[in-house]
Amino acid sequence: MQLRISEAEYARRRKDLLNQLAQNGQDGVLLFGTNNMFYLSAFAMIPTERPMAYVLNGSGRSALLVPRLEQEHAEENALVDIVRSYPEYPGERHPMQFLADLVKELGMGSARIGVDGDGYGAIYGYRGPRLSDALPEAKVTSVRDIIEDMQMVNSPEEIALVRESTRWANLAHRLLQDYCRDGVTENEVSSRASYEATQTMIKTLGKDYRPLSSGRAGASAGFRGQIGKASALPHAITSNAVMRRGDVLVTGAGASVWGYSCELERTMILGEPNRDQAQYFQHMLNVQNIALEAIRPGIPCADVDKAVLRYFEANNLQSTWRHHTGHAKSTQVHEAPFLDRGDQRIIKVGMIFTVEPGIYVNGLGGFRHSDTVAVTEGGIEMLTFYPRDLESLSIPA
Amino acid sequence: MQLRISEAEYARRRKDLLNQLAQNGQDGVLLFGTNNMFYLSAFAMIPTERPMAYVLNGSGRSALLVPRLEQEHAEENALVDIVRSYPEYPGERHPMQFLADLVKELGMGSARIGVDGDGYGAIYGYRGPRLSDALPEAKVTSVRDIIEDMQMVNSPEEIALVRESTRWANLAHRLLQDYCRDGVTENEVSSRASYEATQTMIKTLGKDYRPLSSGRAGASAGFRGQIGKASALPHAITSNAVMRRGDVLVTGAGASVWGYSCELERTMILGEPNRDQAQYFQHMLNVQNIALEAIRPGIPCADVDKAVLRYFEANNLQSTWRHHTGHAKSTQVHEAPFLDRGDQRIIKVGMIFTVEPGIYVNGLGGFRHSDTVAVTEGGIEMLTFYPRDLESLSIPA
Repeated sequence: MQLRISEAEYARRRKDLLNQLAQNGQDGVLLFGTNNMFYLSAFAMIPTERPMAYVLNGSGRSALLVPRLEQEHAEENALVDIVRSYPEYPGERHPMQFLADLVKELGMGSARIGVDGDGYGAIYGYRGPRLSDALPEAKVTSVRDIIEDMQMVNSPEEIALVRESTRWANLAHRLLQDYCRDGVTENEVSSRASYEATQTMIKTLGKDYRPLSSGRAGASAGFRGQIGKASALPHAITSNAVMRRGDVLVTGAGASVWGYSCELERTMILGEPNRDQAQYFQHMLNVQNIALEAIRPGIPCADVDKAVLRYFEANNLQSTWRHHTGHAKSTQVHEAPFLDRGDQRIIKVGMIFTVEPGIYVNGLGGFRHSDTVAVTEGGIEMLTFYPRDLESLSIPA
Repeated sequence: MQLRISEAEYARRRKDLLNQLAQNGQDGVLLFGTNNMFYLSAFAMIPTERPMAYVLNGSGRSALLVPRLEQEHAEENALVDIVRSYPEYPGERHPMQFLADLVKELGMGSARIGVDGDGYGAIYGYRGPRLSDALPEAKVTSVRDIIEDMQMVNSPEEIALVRESTRWANLAHRLLQDYCRDGVTENEVSSRASYEATQTMIKTLGKDYRPLSSGRAGASAGFRGQIGKASALPHAITSNAVMRRGDVLVTGAGASVWGYSCELERTMILGEPNRDQAQYFQHMLNVQNIALEAIRPGIPCADVDKAVLRYFEANNLQSTWRHHTGHAKSTQVHEAPFLDRGDQRIIKVGMIFTVEPGIYVNGLGGFRHSDTVAVTEGGIEMLTFYPRDLESLSIPA
């Protein structure tokens, strides 16, 4: 079992990118986004106000600029030819000036440079000039579409990592369900389930396992505050709610494997579901099935969402609608494209989506499953595999 | 014990901001940053590719634009007069157009608007026009300095929340130290300590406790990979290292109280420190003491860092230097201003800083404590209170 992206695949990514840049009239690329940097160099780090950048010239020579505190970390982990560092931010000389030096070192001082942004973002207290101001002789153009389009289509290696992630999300979620009972707090249940699933994951996968996520080491499962009536808030923030018999619980689980993760969410009922709960649960299941059946290569993302919306309309559920059907998923929490009526991008083989249409009834609760699927020639492969039916998700209490 | 910022304080913030905007020739303000939104409206949420914005006009009337899925959440929690929502991102009509409608509803369609950014940031797959393009008749100007300067100076209520946070970070760290022993993995120790400290925190503080952090519910403590030789990497990412007798361990702990947190980091030795370890530990303690003694109102931030750098030079430690002395801290992980030789901003009463000069020796380990302090008329108040001496931080093994 391979728990990482191979160096050959990183090399292929860089080559593909350079080919596309050349076709687009660019001499090289400069990327500030930590996710983009990770995609090309395998370097995962904690982003702060200290800017970092990845540079790749037309000859395939690559470099990272990092703050001094990341130098050894980058040298040990990043698949690049050169690592350069600046002392600190803000420092006496601005990091963007060091970046200009590095770009010139790679022979790109007056080149046509494709970028993901014309400067480093406003992270924490960062301030700085545009890249185009620091490199007045270069021609700086956004190639965000090119990078993002590449990232949308996942290779077999990438899909395998997400598949591996689903096993551990499944365990975390199983433990979460096992520990739910009348009177416990959400944090009690989610901390215990996440802790135990992470331990088992680490012990099972052994020393080759690297989460490569600054936010999550291992597996986790929780409720994000969606307990009882608050489950009607799709993105409630946890306030350590106590769960009670009769509550609807909406969950979320995931696991990081070399930075890749999945999304596994379920609607559970603590105790015997009442008639309203059972009815909305069934609607949710129906509409998720519609979405799963609609996904196939060659159609616009919008078509999937529109099929879902038709179900809402046909069943008079419009007042319970809160969000679109899903989003792409690999190394970030959410990614483009979106299963959204306004997203006309075409679904392709290798895309990975969450499928999570939700029904939210104020005063009663929310009803949402989220499954992670990979697009295949014939439709989809379900990557997450936790039971979806009401009986399996009703917890004796 | 008050576990929240009072409504009176939120009102005072809005009034102060409007006064400063008026002096600066602005008619109102529009903010995209989630931290800025939280600062003025008490609304904490999970930021995604769906843009949100806070608008305040010159009469003190305030509004939030949120995606549909956050509407009830905002109505229940946000201290604003109006909550408006758009269906989804990307949707059939771009959220920025809904925002333009809301700005006009507040009478600011052709006003002079102070902003923290001319559009929503590149979060996940978001794309969109500039605010100034969506509001061609308005005059959009950055007032990021004004907002950030306000946030830098903490009120007694804010300092009290950070002080409360230090108690629970202290508990999490104590448990972390208690559970370290030869042969255990960092995740085992950090998960258990964080879980137990969070449970105790929640049970002790009771139902008034709200973490209001999307990333952390309760208290946590861990190592971020800084175990043994890897402790020489200031921002190592966890790879579930096994700790062994003789290892240097560099820790980090915190706790969220109404979104406010502290930073508590310690260097510990598993077993009896050897001579090299003891020597570098003592240098680190000396240089942290220099920084703590240097902080006082009325001097530039740079002066503190320069005092630290003089110690590095006088003791021939330049090769072990990796980062500046510290950063401001309240509701974000890092904040401006920075205790950095290049930051000339003046230290003021009410600022909160981390004080964490570090010494990093490749092949041996890293040596860094981080304490959180509030600036007072006479110098500082130490908010974190965990022991700093080598004897207290050497773990029998």
